[in-house]
Amino acid sequence: MKFCTHCAGRLRFAVPPGDDRRRAICSQCGIIHYSNPKIVAGCLALWEDRILLCRRAIEPRRGYWTLPCGYMEEGETVEAAACRETLEESQAEVSIRRLFSIVSLPEISQVYLVFLADLQTPLFGPTPESEDVRLTRQEEIPWDALAFPAVERVLRAYYKHGAGVNELHMSSCTGPPGR
Amino acid sequence: MKFCTHCAGRLRFAVPPGDDRRRAICSQCGIIHYSNPKIVAGCLALWEDRILLCRRAIEPRRGYWTLPCGYMEEGETVEAAACRETLEESQAEVSIRRLFSIVSLPEISQVYLVFLADLQTPLFGPTPESEDVRLTRQEEIPWDALAFPAVERVLRAYYKHGAGVNELHMSSCTGPPGR
Repeated sequence: MKFCTHCAGRLRFAVPPGDDRRRAICSQCGIIHYSNPKIVAGCLALWEDRILLCRRAIEPRRGYWTLPCGYMEEGETVEAAACRETLEESQAEVSIRRLFSIVSLPEISQVYLVFLADLQTPLFGPTPESEDVRLTRQEEIPWDALAFPAVERVLRAYYKHGAGVNELHMSSCTGPPGR
Repeated sequence: MKFCTHCAGRLRFAVPPGDDRRRAICSQCGIIHYSNPKIVAGCLALWEDRILLCRRAIEPRRGYWTLPCGYMEEGETVEAAACRETLEESQAEVSIRRLFSIVSLPEISQVYLVFLADLQTPLFGPTPESEDVRLTRQEEIPWDALAFPAVERVLRAYYKHGAGVNELHMSSCTGPPGR
């Protein structure tokens, strides 16, 4: 970030009066530009004893496996975001049961909200974002080829605690960005 | 948003190839600028049978009552954001019990994450953001002077369901922005 989105003035970085964090401040019009964490919404989508996994067709982590999830957009609810991302990444239509896990990733300023959901039919397939989509049993999970640590965190919570207990799993992950 | 933060070029608004939403695209360097919903983190902070409420000293909704909450910052977990906001708005130190409520506000692209928490001691007071801070019994809640619909939603869920049941209350609010 170098320039002001309002007036194209040069940004400087300083702690504004009454604040305690460095912000991008326009040296021309004085407007302060804030940046905030992003929500990644997605589904742990089930069909019988299998979980829907997607092999990423795009960077970052192309070729690695993920739960269907992505950035929440403006104008939608968290549930709508999770269902939309699942449809976009896997072609699967799901109905949400409940929120299963929240994972904070402070180092990359993301918060994952992952819902337990059911495939309405076992219909799914590749998309521009996923080169392969599969229903996966526990013994088939590619633990060494998962795209993101939050995905591993959610899968491990699922296989440890199961879907039955009405419990929300909250955790945070630290680690190198990009994973 | 009129100018690119990278090169100060003029932004144009169009649906990029492979996308289905209008984005701000730089007409000079081609970079796409995304905007995403913001997380508002806060606490339903308890001391015995009373809830901590703050009367806002700043706009929007100056003079109206709220649970202590505010925008999550980069580099923190959701729990840390909720505790920090509570401290900043009320001087109160809290310990978190569990996540109590998530409220999506698609019209203003906010997602509230409100935690049930306990005051460690009944110490609190006004701050630059709150002209008054009080521990409030159910019959004293200023229902007609609450700052935001999400705050009302969370308080109503609390008085309907109580703190005891380990249930997460998920809902969405629509309504005019600014309330």
